[in-house]
Amino acid sequence: ELFKFQVAVPDLIESCEDSNILIFVVPHQFVRKICHQLEGKIAADAQAISLIKGVAAPYAEKLGGVKLISDEIREILNIDVSVLMGANLAHEVANDDFCEATIGCKKKAQHGAILKKLFNRDNFCINVVEDAHTVELCGALKNVVACAAGFTDGLGYGDNTKAAVIRLGLMEITKFVEHYYPGSNLETFFESCGIADLITTCYGGRNRKVCEAFAKSGKSLEQIEKEMLHGQSAQGPLTADEVFYMIDKSGVSDKFPLFTAVHKICRGKLKPTDMIPCLRSHPEHLDR
Amino acid sequence: ELFKFQVAVPDLIESCEDSNILIFVVPHQFVRKICHQLEGKIAADAQAISLIKGVAAPYAEKLGGVKLISDEIREILNIDVSVLMGANLAHEVANDDFCEATIGCKKKAQHGAILKKLFNRDNFCINVVEDAHTVELCGALKNVVACAAGFTDGLGYGDNTKAAVIRLGLMEITKFVEHYYPGSNLETFFESCGIADLITTCYGGRNRKVCEAFAKSGKSLEQIEKEMLHGQSAQGPLTADEVFYMIDKSGVSDKFPLFTAVHKICRGKLKPTDMIPCLRSHPEHLDR
Repeated sequence: ELFKFQVAVPDLIESCEDSNILIFVVPHQFVRKICHQLEGKIAADAQAISLIKGVAAPYAEKLGGVKLISDEIREILNIDVSVLMGANLAHEVANDDFCEATIGCKKKAQHGAILKKLFNRDNFCINVVEDAHTVELCGALKNVVACAAGFTDGLGYGDNTKAAVIRLGLMEITKFVEHYYPGSNLETFFESCGIADLITTCYGGRNRKVCEAFAKSGKSLEQIEKEMLHGQSAQGPLTADEVFYMIDKSGVSDKFPLFTAVHKICRGKLKPTDMIPCLRSHPEHLDR
Repeated sequence: ELFKFQVAVPDLIESCEDSNILIFVVPHQFVRKICHQLEGKIAADAQAISLIKGVAAPYAEKLGGVKLISDEIREILNIDVSVLMGANLAHEVANDDFCEATIGCKKKAQHGAILKKLFNRDNFCINVVEDAHTVELCGALKNVVACAAGFTDGLGYGDNTKAAVIRLGLMEITKFVEHYYPGSNLETFFESCGIADLITTCYGGRNRKVCEAFAKSGKSLEQIEKEMLHGQSAQGPLTADEVFYMIDKSGVSDKFPLFTAVHKICRGKLKPTDMIPCLRSHPEHLDR
């Protein structure tokens, strides 16, 4: 039904000026420019929802921390912004296979029901939670963990090692959220945006695939991306750069050895085999 | 080092009478008999640790609930019993691939350090937690979820659907633990015994494999087990029977549609395709 009334309007302002709900699904480097074009030209009661998986990078220094893409949209357009994340690889959604997703809403009482109604389908089951920043960060950070999973795949390790990578990666995601957004809800990680999306991405995602090939072949990441993604960049290594910039700046990189290792391996400062010792000595194993 | 001093002693009582730590790794139907043989014949300061994944079945009716294998050992031998569970498929452990495991200890202050020292290795990283019954139930119930994952694999679904099965299965595990052992710690599910073991089992375990073949071939489960496991039984369908017996008896089976469906599909009362509608209408999706 959603697509029955779908019309492609090539002009950005024309397509948005009377809209009540703006859905953002663009590469995250375009968000800022698009928002500035729309400034002052959207309906007074408009709201937005972002499906973009990533964090806004070059502002971290000024802010002394992470900047969410939803916050960037919110600040420029001065409207409420929700996010939709979850275990929903595009080609399987297109195939109408059963899947779930999570909407993170700052104002659930006000906007939760309409957003659920908009996206929920028989085979696309939505839960709405109010812990919006956790939902968004799960969507961004899972791609970093998927790179680590890809390295262990490329090195020939099996399901045990991969499960350890996924678990330790999830622990770093929870610690990262807690560090930059204290007071988040542990239960949010049990939603589709949390463990489910992480599993899917670490098994079926393209960050995993690219990093597996990188570890296996010894070629540069750029070369692999050129061959496998036709020149596009994988999101995981970029997010790892941004995450490392933040945790290094905050002086807490030793608490995030997996995130740190992914960044350094992708940028040639460590070898893929250095992943394993970093798991062995992970802070999660100390004194427990 | 552990195996340097290993000696095989075929007589049960002789091998145990001077032991301080008894390690139980046997098919769970033999536990009761072994314990009765050992009654009154072990050291006064002995303790046990169980690596067995399952629940003790035929006593549920008398007890009105679940019976843990650790409790069975504890009651007969009157000693402290810990458990070891985690994402550690045997052939990968034997291959010395990196993995993690969780020890659940009722008396962590007293026994945690020695048990960690006994099992912890460079490539077998142990965490000890005090929430022992959660650790043990995770080890048993993951096999039921793995059956569900196997059905969706057999039906040709991809990573999205499987992630939904794993997530909804995990929610049922947490609800089951909460129902029969209220007050468990949500953080225990983030240990290797929780999400990590669940992921490993749903991707690399034999319950998944057997149930995939079952859904794909239309043969009986007995036939599949005969062909794939040389006549052995997969643990998942047995555990699903025991779990269904308990939740049905307690009148809460509608809160556990995935556990219920696995039992009924394995026993021919539902078809594997009935898995999907049960996911769609799962209580986790109601009013959220």
